[in-house]
Amino acid sequence: METSAEHSGPARRRGRWRTGARSRERILEAARSCFAQHGYDRATVREIAGAAGVDPAMVHYFFGSKSRLFVTAMEFPVNPIDEITEALDADPEELGGRIVRRFVESWDASPGAGPLAALLRSPGDERSETMFSEYIRREIAGHLIPAIPGEDPELRAELIGSHLIGLALSRYVLGLEPLASATPETLATWMGPAIQYYLAGTTAPRGPQQG
Amino acid sequence: METSAEHSGPARRRGRWRTGARSRERILEAARSCFAQHGYDRATVREIAGAAGVDPAMVHYFFGSKSRLFVTAMEFPVNPIDEITEALDADPEELGGRIVRRFVESWDASPGAGPLAALLRSPGDERSETMFSEYIRREIAGHLIPAIPGEDPELRAELIGSHLIGLALSRYVLGLEPLASATPETLATWMGPAIQYYLAGTTAPRGPQQG
Repeated sequence: METSAEHSGPARRRGRWRTGARSRERILEAARSCFAQHGYDRATVREIAGAAGVDPAMVHYFFGSKSRLFVTAMEFPVNPIDEITEALDADPEELGGRIVRRFVESWDASPGAGPLAALLRSPGDERSETMFSEYIRREIAGHLIPAIPGEDPELRAELIGSHLIGLALSRYVLGLEPLASATPETLATWMGPAIQYYLAGTTAPRGPQQG
Repeated sequence: METSAEHSGPARRRGRWRTGARSRERILEAARSCFAQHGYDRATVREIAGAAGVDPAMVHYFFGSKSRLFVTAMEFPVNPIDEITEALDADPEELGGRIVRRFVESWDASPGAGPLAALLRSPGDERSETMFSEYIRREIAGHLIPAIPGEDPELRAELIGSHLIGLALSRYVLGLEPLASATPETLATWMGPAIQYYLAGTTAPRGPQQG
């Protein structure tokens, strides 16, 4: 037995799906604009929802949090917070190598795409700088710093970040060889212990074999 | 006893000095143009002299070598080759810290000036990229690599370079705190052992106390 409701169901679902996809895209556009205009800290989910013409609940439904909305809007190849959380759960002795390997594998998978790559190509843009600096300080540093022991944890977290961004610049923008062609595994082998040293917070680097 | 030659001497010397200063400036302009157009490797002293309308001997008289001409034309705060040579002559155990300290002190002394800082602000310029990549590979890597022992010396030299350029980007362009306000000594203390590890060429970093 067919009813008009059953007939209209799929069409309405398709319609809803299309409306949802359009809303999601409008939210992402509004997010890019609001983050660029007001920075990461001052842009709010409420303001982004308003600019997209949707309810703030819809932003939470699609993206969960301001942090995830930012990562999606900026087309990050992976969510750095998920990476950090996962890495911190694993063997801390191998954390440095894991961070390098995942970073390189993620960038290799989507070279030169998205606003982050654009910033790397043109770091002089002050609005982008503010937006990314604030995101790095609040979210990445906020998650990483409490997890690393020893003195000057903020400085060491930034030294890790500066080494990774310098690697991205050398490998993907300047194309320096042999660094640009090295495998993620080779880079993890060499660079991992340097990152591990910054994480460990000793004033001199110690390898695993030195205990 | 005075002669007309003695009278005309100072005036002629001043005239020569002015001519020399003008020639020197013309050589630098020609160098910037030729290096940008043909890259570091293919630009020749002969071609630069021709473009400046002077004899190649005058280029050698003013600048000594293509490498020094490049460093002067690009307004590097220091000559990296002199720094590397000096650092390699010193205690090899403290080389990492010395490299970091000199790098930071040099950049602190002339923040944001010159074509190198311009490249850092806008690395997308392909001509600049070629020019600097070739200079780094031929001159910096050419001097540093033969001096460092162990496997993959080219890769490790580039990891040192990528960490330093990432530091410059984070400190001088993005202004990340507390990294941007840290003293050269603090940065040398933390970052020196990481550079030292890359120089030593062991697969795990060892501090001096483990050596």
